[in-house]
Amino acid sequence: MTQTATEPPAGVAALTPLVAPRSIAVVGASDQPARIGGRILARLKETYQGAIFPVNASRDTVQGLPAHPGISAVPEPVDLAIVAAPGPAVPQIARDAAARGTGALLVLSAGFGEVGEEGRRAQDELAAIGAGSGMRICGPNCIGIMNLTIGLRAVFSTLTDVPQETGGIGIVSQSGGFGMGMFETAQRSGLGVSYVLATGNEADVTCGEMVGHLVEQPDVRVIALFMEGLRKPAGLLAAARRALELGKPIVAVRTGRSQVGARAAASHTGALSSADDVVSAAFEGAGIIRVDGPAELIEFARVFAAGRRPAGRRLAVVTSSGGAGVLMADAAEAAGLEMPRPAGALADALDGLVPSFGSTANPIDPTAQIVNDQSMLRELFTKVTAAPDYDMVVVAGVARGLGPALRETVQAACDSTDKPFAAWAAQEVALDLTARGVTACHDPMLLIRGLGELARYQETRERLLGEPFHPREDPSPGAEPPSRRLAEHVSRRYLVEAGIPVPDERVVTGAAEAVAAAAELGGTVVLKLSADWLSHKSEHGAVRVGLSGRDEVEGAYAALAALGEELRPEGAPDAVVLVQRMAEPGLELVCGLFTDPTFGPVVTVGLGGTLVEIVRDRRLALAPVGPAEAGRLVRELAGGRLVGAVRGLTEAQAATVAGVLVRLGGTVRRHPEIRELELNPLIVGPSGAVAVDALAVVSQTATGEPPC
Amino acid sequence: MTQTATEPPAGVAALTPLVAPRSIAVVGASDQPARIGGRILARLKETYQGAIFPVNASRDTVQGLPAHPGISAVPEPVDLAIVAAPGPAVPQIARDAAARGTGALLVLSAGFGEVGEEGRRAQDELAAIGAGSGMRICGPNCIGIMNLTIGLRAVFSTLTDVPQETGGIGIVSQSGGFGMGMFETAQRSGLGVSYVLATGNEADVTCGEMVGHLVEQPDVRVIALFMEGLRKPAGLLAAARRALELGKPIVAVRTGRSQVGARAAASHTGALSSADDVVSAAFEGAGIIRVDGPAELIEFARVFAAGRRPAGRRLAVVTSSGGAGVLMADAAEAAGLEMPRPAGALADALDGLVPSFGSTANPIDPTAQIVNDQSMLRELFTKVTAAPDYDMVVVAGVARGLGPALRETVQAACDSTDKPFAAWAAQEVALDLTARGVTACHDPMLLIRGLGELARYQETRERLLGEPFHPREDPSPGAEPPSRRLAEHVSRRYLVEAGIPVPDERVVTGAAEAVAAAAELGGTVVLKLSADWLSHKSEHGAVRVGLSGRDEVEGAYAALAALGEELRPEGAPDAVVLVQRMAEPGLELVCGLFTDPTFGPVVTVGLGGTLVEIVRDRRLALAPVGPAEAGRLVRELAGGRLVGAVRGLTEAQAATVAGVLVRLGGTVRRHPEIRELELNPLIVGPSGAVAVDALAVVSQTATGEPPC
Repeated sequence: MTQTATEPPAGVAALTPLVAPRSIAVVGASDQPARIGGRILARLKETYQGAIFPVNASRDTVQGLPAHPGISAVPEPVDLAIVAAPGPAVPQIARDAAARGTGALLVLSAGFGEVGEEGRRAQDELAAIGAGSGMRICGPNCIGIMNLTIGLRAVFSTLTDVPQETGGIGIVSQSGGFGMGMFETAQRSGLGVSYVLATGNEADVTCGEMVGHLVEQPDVRVIALFMEGLRKPAGLLAAARRALELGKPIVAVRTGRSQVGARAAASHTGALSSADDVVSAAFEGAGIIRVDGPAELIEFARVFAAGRRPAGRRLAVVTSSGGAGVLMADAAEAAGLEMPRPAGALADALDGLVPSFGSTANPIDPTAQIVNDQSMLRELFTKVTAAPDYDMVVVAGVARGLGPALRETVQAACDSTDKPFAAWAAQEVALDLTARGVTACHDPMLLIRGLGELARYQETRERLLGEPFHPREDPSPGAEPPSRRLAEHVSRRYLVEAGIPVPDERVVTGAAEAVAAAAELGGTVVLKLSADWLSHKSEHGAVRVGLSGRDEVEGAYAALAALGEELRPEGAPDAVVLVQRMAEPGLELVCGLFTDPTFGPVVTVGLGGTLVEIVRDRRLALAPVGPAEAGRLVRELAGGRLVGAVRGLTEAQAATVAGVLVRLGGTVRRHPEIRELELNPLIVGPSGAVAVDALAVVSQTATGEPPC
Repeated sequence: MTQTATEPPAGVAALTPLVAPRSIAVVGASDQPARIGGRILARLKETYQGAIFPVNASRDTVQGLPAHPGISAVPEPVDLAIVAAPGPAVPQIARDAAARGTGALLVLSAGFGEVGEEGRRAQDELAAIGAGSGMRICGPNCIGIMNLTIGLRAVFSTLTDVPQETGGIGIVSQSGGFGMGMFETAQRSGLGVSYVLATGNEADVTCGEMVGHLVEQPDVRVIALFMEGLRKPAGLLAAARRALELGKPIVAVRTGRSQVGARAAASHTGALSSADDVVSAAFEGAGIIRVDGPAELIEFARVFAAGRRPAGRRLAVVTSSGGAGVLMADAAEAAGLEMPRPAGALADALDGLVPSFGSTANPIDPTAQIVNDQSMLRELFTKVTAAPDYDMVVVAGVARGLGPALRETVQAACDSTDKPFAAWAAQEVALDLTARGVTACHDPMLLIRGLGELARYQETRERLLGEPFHPREDPSPGAEPPSRRLAEHVSRRYLVEAGIPVPDERVVTGAAEAVAAAAELGGTVVLKLSADWLSHKSEHGAVRVGLSGRDEVEGAYAALAALGEELRPEGAPDAVVLVQRMAEPGLELVCGLFTDPTFGPVVTVGLGGTLVEIVRDRRLALAPVGPAEAGRLVRELAGGRLVGAVRGLTEAQAATVAGVLVRLGGTVRRHPEIRELELNPLIVGPSGAVAVDALAVVSQTATGEPPC
């Protein structure tokens, strides 16, 4: 826990033998290019810049290189051993490799965790060999890795006719097929991709570690990540923090949304938050940009790879097509970008330049007249890109038929500014513009969304770097420990200790005591039952609100005492009766804390009231959470309309709620026994927020107990 | 209003001279291919199958054809005159063309409505010439039209190197640039597009009419539509009904979402519904599939153009890539598709076919072993496509490197079934598969979403065709008439007449009368003020709920009477005091009716309560609305979770609310004076729904008044 994120996370250097080896042994090397061991060796011979040692027990040479009978027989140090042998032979190869001090093992062979119990045992054996020796193991069941900066192309998929340019994009993918598919699509659209790192079954090396490695590479500007699962998030989250510090965005697809069933949890908090929501929250809180599929992954990476960063959200669109302009204006608003009109000097300059039947508003329509006059168009671009009015510029619908002159003008405009500058163009034109160094995309919606993510990334980065980083620990394997629910008046002690406001309250044992308590508290009071066996109090009629005066209080006490006796399970202790000062009316929220089996503690905030389960408007963040992140959660409720709206929250109230979330998130540090803690509702009124009910579920095995 | 939708809407035949002319005059014909009049003529000469008459006053021949000095001088009948002359010359050309009985005019020339007041006048002049003569006018400021079934390519954009295959897709676009861009993208991805019909400024012919024409063409299977505005929706909605009957989907982009400000309206109903919501509602209710941008437009059209229709939502995914499978399973759930496991005979067959390390669940993973054995793969496909388990089949991630054998197998599988069958493949492979007649797409998310729309279209079609079609009339131009608000007790008469339940009520004029009324109504009552000058009653304290007994009623009456006097504007009539039987508690909804300036009356239903303006969960439909459509609106609230949920609505309650919407929608027929009518809230309790408050806004000019 002493690790800070201002230096590379531990373990990253350990992947250098795997990703940037100086020497490679190919175990299972073959003369036949149709065999995996043949294809890999041939590719290495073609472009790899380090030493290559074929290992083949039955030959003296393979593909003209001297062969060695086993990895133990290789006379020089081996950074990386690539294993293309049948599955059953792999564990012994791994042992031999570990014994001779090999840095890393890349296991392409299949037949492990993916094929059943026996395979899983073999995979565990591999993992144990790695753990025991320090040799890192990538795979098994892995398509391989590519590091084009050193000519390493250790993948067995077809590469014929695919461009293989280095560039600022690194791909990390659990699925090799998906990773290579992204590589091909990106390369064919003119994007340079230096790395494809597939992890396969992840017996040892995880996607998170691969990301951690790439983040430290100076030539990597953006990382595209594809994951099917995420059992060990700590490495990824630490790498994401480094990436944020270095300003290298991570765009990620994480599949499995549909297969993850609803988490089993006793309280509403848990029931309403699927594990996939937690993944989204964890990514959001780490600055990882989560997307749904390959098209967004590649196009967002394209926008980020240009390396330019906007100072704000103001976009200028230049187009002589009205249809294109309105389409992009719609897309811009949906992406959270602003398209203000030009003002001041820029407005004057455009008025003098653009014919009256064009438009100097934004989208800026220079008319075909100017588009056909490159010197005038160049002047227009110079003015727009240089003006303080805009943070980024898009040229839309550059027609296919227009010759290289226009493309040169666009290129010159792009070169003349440091602001993000992009073009929407037909596929062929986009390819040409990309070759000229202009960010160009044939899908206008993805391009604008990408620019929106670029602007949002800058804001997210600033917000997250302003709050301390809390490294996490991966969950230890094993079943969920047994847990038990606490009564309201016991649960509330956690809130009191954390400084979260709760109503004044008395535990009473008789009607007279109840009346006295009500008088002492003053005003209107609430009487309710509290017991660890009692849930859904309101539905059982165990909460009586709006009471004042002796008669009402006495009557409510008698009714609750009888109800408590009626509801009490046999052998359970009596419920106690609570007298609480009634909270002033206000907006009802539900705040909570629960423990996710992978990510650990999570805080939640959502709209409350009777429609809570129908509206299901709720935001999550990994705990602990800082005030800026907590504020973001509150602000994002109700589609961003909660704060500042009539009947919504004031800025001050939003800050109060954020404060509650910060305190709630801090609770688990002191009390690791807490599995769940729910404030339902937190009533936010004119003079503050009050948690009028509390429910804690605590682990029966973890140490710690509620404060007194 | 006697028009039914079981025959082509009136006016469709009138577009035949424009879209399928037997003879064409080119006014402004030129020898120079760089000029528009030159390019158009050259293209017609190349492929157009009808008669061509160049019109040029200063030449005897143009491009080798005899030229005529004016359109009046053309010796034979002219179906279509294409005008490529300067703007100022156009009105006279139009007059000449109309005088000689030309069927239609296609005005490519710019300089009309898009360039200011003078241009707008010239455009109105054109429209008047058309209206006076019956000659239909397309444009001005129009890129042209293409009808490849007769070799008509009357567009001036570049077409070099673009495939020009006929096919089941027709494109209608206000923006010519956008339309031709879609044409190019579609053609390059292997899709045949027979028509591109651009409408430009729409002096006369609208997008809706063009759609109406295409719907009637037997070779058109799907229509892709791009609109920037929609001032005259009647034609489009009638065409959409015909398209539904004929089973020809319309996929549409309608831009301008961001530019449409919130509609000005006095009540919440209007304020919460932007005009863009109304467009979406109108499209939804007409079966038009609204999308955001060109990628969806083309890929959804691709899925629809295959012409196959699923019997349900059950999708089988076959892939040997685990990553691809999970990705598509996620996408399928998001698109509303189901992916059940194989059962019965299919399950048995797959168990016998697929190796144990594959998967016979869904996604079905046949393993590389089977993928490399075409006869086994063929058998697998035969079983899956033939099984009753699935309504559609997708093959995912067909690897690029695999040779033509696999593609042949996929083609054979596609040919062997009538079910929708599609493939996700790398771009080049997708192109080859498309040529083989397989629906193939390189973007898995768009493909799956398209299949989801296909399934939804079938359901929508059935639902909409089960309800009567109500032809609409386009709004007459002119300013919104002045309107006035009615008092609650007057507004409620509309509800009583429509048969919408309201609470028992008495208007009282003194405390004693109030007490008597309360006694007569029985139980708990509500007292409130009612006046046409009184809005936001609750916020003014003008509603007192939960009253019982003489003292409470007397006290409330006195307070309200005083409040009424205090709030009453000078010179306004007194507010009256209402005594209402208090409704039983229940779920609060807001139902309403308002008049959209373009589409006319719209019914709305949304979640009510104090958070209504923050949650903004509301559905709209053009009025009148049938029970199935009304039921859909209710069912779609709260992300589809309202009906059947705890604290939500039961099926019976949902039907009751739908009935209220049907009645509400019917009200405007009898009372065209209604501009707005709001039920806020409609309380839906165990024994029914009651509108406990009503607010009507009526036009001061329209005839009609509230019933007594």
